[in-house]
Amino acid sequence: MASTFRDRRRIEFYETDMAGIVHFSNYFRFMEASEHAFFRSLGFTLHREEEGKMSGWARVRAQCENRLPLRYMDEVEVELLVRARKKSSLAYDFVFRRVADRNGPTPHDEVALGHLEVVHVEREPGGRLRATPMPAEIARAIDVAGES
Amino acid sequence: MASTFRDRRRIEFYETDMAGIVHFSNYFRFMEASEHAFFRSLGFTLHREEEGKMSGWARVRAQCENRLPLRYMDEVEVELLVRARKKSSLAYDFVFRRVADRNGPTPHDEVALGHLEVVHVEREPGGRLRATPMPAEIARAIDVAGES
Amino acid sequence: MASTFRDRRRIEFYETDMAGIVHFSNYFRFMEASEHAFFRSLGFTLHREEEGKMSGWARVRAQCENRLPLRYMDEVEVELLVRARKKSSLAYDFVFRRVADRNGPTPHDEVALGHLEVVHVEREPGGRLRATPMPAEIARAIDVAGES
Amino acid sequence: MASTFRDRRRIEFYETDMAGIVHFSNYFRFMEASEHAFFRSLGFTLHREEEGKMSGWARVRAQCENRLPLRYMDEVEVELLVRARKKSSLAYDFVFRRVADRNGPTPHDEVALGHLEVVHVEREPGGRLRATPMPAEIARAIDVAGES
Repeated sequence: MASTFRDRRRIEFYETDMAGIVHFSNYFRFMEASEHAFFRSLGFTLHREEEGKMSGWARVRAQCENRLPLRYMDEVEVELLVRARKKSSLAYDFVFRRVADRNGPTPHDEVALGHLEVVHVEREPGGRLRATPMPAEIARAIDVAGES
Repeated sequence: MASTFRDRRRIEFYETDMAGIVHFSNYFRFMEASEHAFFRSLGFTLHREEEGKMSGWARVRAQCENRLPLRYMDEVEVELLVRARKKSSLAYDFVFRRVADRNGPTPHDEVALGHLEVVHVEREPGGRLRATPMPAEIARAIDVAGES
Repeated sequence: MASTFRDRRRIEFYETDMAGIVHFSNYFRFMEASEHAFFRSLGFTLHREEEGKMSGWARVRAQCENRLPLRYMDEVEVELLVRARKKSSLAYDFVFRRVADRNGPTPHDEVALGHLEVVHVEREPGGRLRATPMPAEIARAIDVAGES
Repeated sequence: MASTFRDRRRIEFYETDMAGIVHFSNYFRFMEASEHAFFRSLGFTLHREEEGKMSGWARVRAQCENRLPLRYMDEVEVELLVRARKKSSLAYDFVFRRVADRNGPTPHDEVALGHLEVVHVEREPGGRLRATPMPAEIARAIDVAGES
């Protein structure tokens, strides 16, 4: 069973703002990209559309604490840790560490800490999203970090 | 019949990049927002989902020429002009004029010129987008600028 | 002294994702846009560059609880409330209320609750951001909601 | 001398819109990311700040022709080709090919064609951007495709 996942990304120019650093809204995109890569590593997809029926994971809570700025060309490691798993929901923590800047490798400073809570939902015919238990194969494959 | 539309927007901080100016990808968002507002002004919507059937306007060509940068807090007028209307497609030009900066009104310099070509599409059951004639009420309401 | 601020925005097509709703990263942009409008309403600007010296407000904590999705063409009211003011920091709560959808006015449901903590910073010659007391005129103009 | 560059990226969920496809503004970000990777492969950086002096490459023209939509989890190859090199400017073509979708490898269909023209600029003390000749080492390292 999987409870953690790591990947890396390089900061793109278009992710910066006029303060010369990564705009804080992007950390939430980075978290989500990491969550998608985690699912992909397990053979799942976060978003499914089959025969007109759509299911996915609604974000119900998101937070981020920013300690140090990230800059253009920085390389950052994003570590995902599953913190809770209920019948229809998951909670994750994320640790962002800068591992390189434009001049090369850096100490692995924790630059940000994130948290995300998501609920498995299905889209009803009228378009409303309704919470439903997560698929059994996902419940079997994902575990809470430190408890496996 | 309508062939032109104008609206204004103020540059947001999150639309800038580390060069201190609006990131060029945003001009395409501004054009599209203007296109949506144009449709809204006529009582239409660019994107429709009815009984599971989705129709909209696929972007097939987009271009922008940037003459002067836009900056945080600049106010910009976007003028849309309909340049072509065929059975299932429309083409627009856009003129971006800065009308104010953070210190107040400015000369109405043309800061950018845009162009967009869109095709009316329906989503087929399998998910593919297929070009179809635009709804008759839209064809009746929209005209080519300078020809009405 | 000001401690609250309200403004409205309409959801743009480019703010949606393939689930058919506003992508959650955008709520953080909406909060920030509201914060900028609040400062503007008081005659201030969040970001300043004078004689090569840059000062601004670093985001150190951001969170959002999403209760109901927002969709294309929804109109949303964002209410900002100042929750804390220290020597060099401010904390805000944000209440997002949907006030209209594409069919017209709706009940003012609270669709999301946000929170933002920011620290006044100056950019040092080497590029590092250093926390500094906020300008006196800002401290004089902004108050904690419910305490004025 | 280098005149072409290829890299690949996977489409992220946050790059889609409610039509279920990649929002067209993102193709311009993909082009730019490719341009940055091209420069990086040559040991250069597109944006430089040294002793308070900033130089970079202003986008003066950008266009994209979209033939087929890209979707969540598609993998796309972006090929960059240098089309013109003058004293202070470069022009690029980009070919986007989908090489995989969520089910695995696909025929390498050309899904989009892009074009970008950029001018080397320096930021003057007052903040204005002024065109200047590109650094000699860049002129020496970059060539027009098909002419080397």
